[in-house]
Amino acid sequence: MSRALSESERCAWLRLARTENVGPVTFRELVRRYGSAVEAIAALPELARRGGRSGVRIPSEAEIERELAAGEALGARLVAAGEPAFPAALAATDPPPPVLWLRGNAEALARPAVAVVGARVASAAGQRFARGLAAELGQAGLVVVSGLARGIDAAAHEGALPTGTVAVLAGGVDDVYPTENRGLYARICETGCVVSENEPGRAATARDFPRRNRIISGLARAVVVVEAEMRSGSLITARLAAEQGREVLAVPGSPLDPRAKGANDLIRQGAAICEGADDVLRALEGLGALREPEAAAFGGEPAQAGAEADAALRERLAALLSPTPVARDELVRATGAAAPAVFAALVELALAGRAELLPGGLASTG
Amino acid sequence: MSRALSESERCAWLRLARTENVGPVTFRELVRRYGSAVEAIAALPELARRGGRSGVRIPSEAEIERELAAGEALGARLVAAGEPAFPAALAATDPPPPVLWLRGNAEALARPAVAVVGARVASAAGQRFARGLAAELGQAGLVVVSGLARGIDAAAHEGALPTGTVAVLAGGVDDVYPTENRGLYARICETGCVVSENEPGRAATARDFPRRNRIISGLARAVVVVEAEMRSGSLITARLAAEQGREVLAVPGSPLDPRAKGANDLIRQGAAICEGADDVLRALEGLGALREPEAAAFGGEPAQAGAEADAALRERLAALLSPTPVARDELVRATGAAAPAVFAALVELALAGRAELLPGGLASTG
Repeated sequence: MSRALSESERCAWLRLARTENVGPVTFRELVRRYGSAVEAIAALPELARRGGRSGVRIPSEAEIERELAAGEALGARLVAAGEPAFPAALAATDPPPPVLWLRGNAEALARPAVAVVGARVASAAGQRFARGLAAELGQAGLVVVSGLARGIDAAAHEGALPTGTVAVLAGGVDDVYPTENRGLYARICETGCVVSENEPGRAATARDFPRRNRIISGLARAVVVVEAEMRSGSLITARLAAEQGREVLAVPGSPLDPRAKGANDLIRQGAAICEGADDVLRALEGLGALREPEAAAFGGEPAQAGAEADAALRERLAALLSPTPVARDELVRATGAAAPAVFAALVELALAGRAELLPGGLASTG
Repeated sequence: MSRALSESERCAWLRLARTENVGPVTFRELVRRYGSAVEAIAALPELARRGGRSGVRIPSEAEIERELAAGEALGARLVAAGEPAFPAALAATDPPPPVLWLRGNAEALARPAVAVVGARVASAAGQRFARGLAAELGQAGLVVVSGLARGIDAAAHEGALPTGTVAVLAGGVDDVYPTENRGLYARICETGCVVSENEPGRAATARDFPRRNRIISGLARAVVVVEAEMRSGSLITARLAAEQGREVLAVPGSPLDPRAKGANDLIRQGAAICEGADDVLRALEGLGALREPEAAAFGGEPAQAGAEADAALRERLAALLSPTPVARDELVRATGAAAPAVFAALVELALAGRAELLPGGLASTG
């Protein structure tokens, strides 16, 4: 829609975003189908009941007012996906987070950004490299995005402090972890920006991190992995970046250092080698304009009626789902039903906690 | 020809190989054109005169006998290109060295080989890696080839001592440099093999090293570069290996270590990442049988007559040559003359020291 929301629209948007079992995919499906968050909220109880559950916990308006007040008390600002102030690169992800809390200098989000991420238990050399790389990227006019973790993340933020850096938190915008990074956090708030999709005051849990990592890569045109062991969060961020069409770079290291294993493995898989800022700048030259978010991603005309899912289809879908994510297109083929009916049924199952709708067109059990 | 030479043929072969201005390319052209080394030697004075020089220094038979006696005194063995005992992988290079002196266990040259090369001033970690890699490659049945230099080369030989390793020297087969590697040299002679294309007793000069490097890569199915600064000999070996159709692997390293720059750069250019022996074995799986040397590479029917070059063509070619190597095919196009006439004229210029015939179909001023 690309217009600022009214106060009441913003309140409904946030209520829907905070509703139990509503993730970014379900959120977007509901807003697409009902044309607005207000209409979607009105439909929720019936949808959840059809999915097989007596109801769904929608936060009260008072709860939402409390979240808005808590954010304001921090001097933070709420931006909804689709609003002009929502970062363009993140808006182009599929789907974007429904809302972001921003603390600090929101202007940092308007400039092109590069993510620098890596190991928490990083070598001194790796931290030195990350700090120097971030400083050079900053001098080249880029904003450096990272996750405020120990090690590489902290070093990257430090290097880019003079030019602007964005920290994406897994908990609320005020959930500083580790505590040793409190000073760094305060300095980022002064010159850069802290970002979270969660409500202020919330402490991060394990399942917040993949969504946080998706925002890190989503804000950035390129992701640089400095040191990463196999199966680390940094590699997940790199995978998400590739899915989002962003450039992935990795800093090579000795095979004798286990922290180099993940980055070397990325290079094997086609990531560009990063030995300095020049490599990042070269990778960005090759990158076309980011795909603009579809105009119809949010709002616009409500989807056609006739997308009512019948109970039999819903139960067949529930039986087809497993913890292993499967493409929704595959579910369409497996059931032989029309795609809109399948999507509608999946949203109902998601609201009932019986399905999880994942980015990339995937679904699994909830 | 793939048959052992008689004593007199061997003596002529070695005389031609040791003749002034006769490199591997000219050697092969002459043997092709005249059918044997004996016939080629008979033609040399007239060819050099045509090239513009009153004569060419051909070693006497007595000098050749002295070289053969010196090699025998060391217990070394001379093998001519085209003989069955000449290493098959090296015979497939274009062109192979005309002769090789072998000291030690020549059986090591019959097994598939991998070269492990790198920096002389290597890090302790790099040397440890090279030693371990060579040991694992040896256990997998491969012979490890290197150049007996300080650092990575020495470590690679050490790791492969129990299973067999080949040292290729730039000087004579007894020219051990650096002297600290004397003990290693002695142990290689016991279980592995030392190889040189030069006469025993000869001390290496700077221009011997590129030809030595071509033998290292030519003996190997794959070349692994462990640590290498930019513009180092190891990178030249890697380039030669690629030209010879061999696999090139490189061990990644931190951008903060200048010794990693060359290997990382190879990876950028498409070299496979080597983090251990498995990577080398995987690269070899993908490698088809080495191209067999052409049956007509040496000996066979003499080339057709009518390949006499006239003086005008020769002088036009001399004028076209510069220190920058140019393709001989390009010289054929530039002169509009027949290819055999151009090649014949180039051989004459080479013998007169006015041209240099290089591997890969190139020519430059001598």
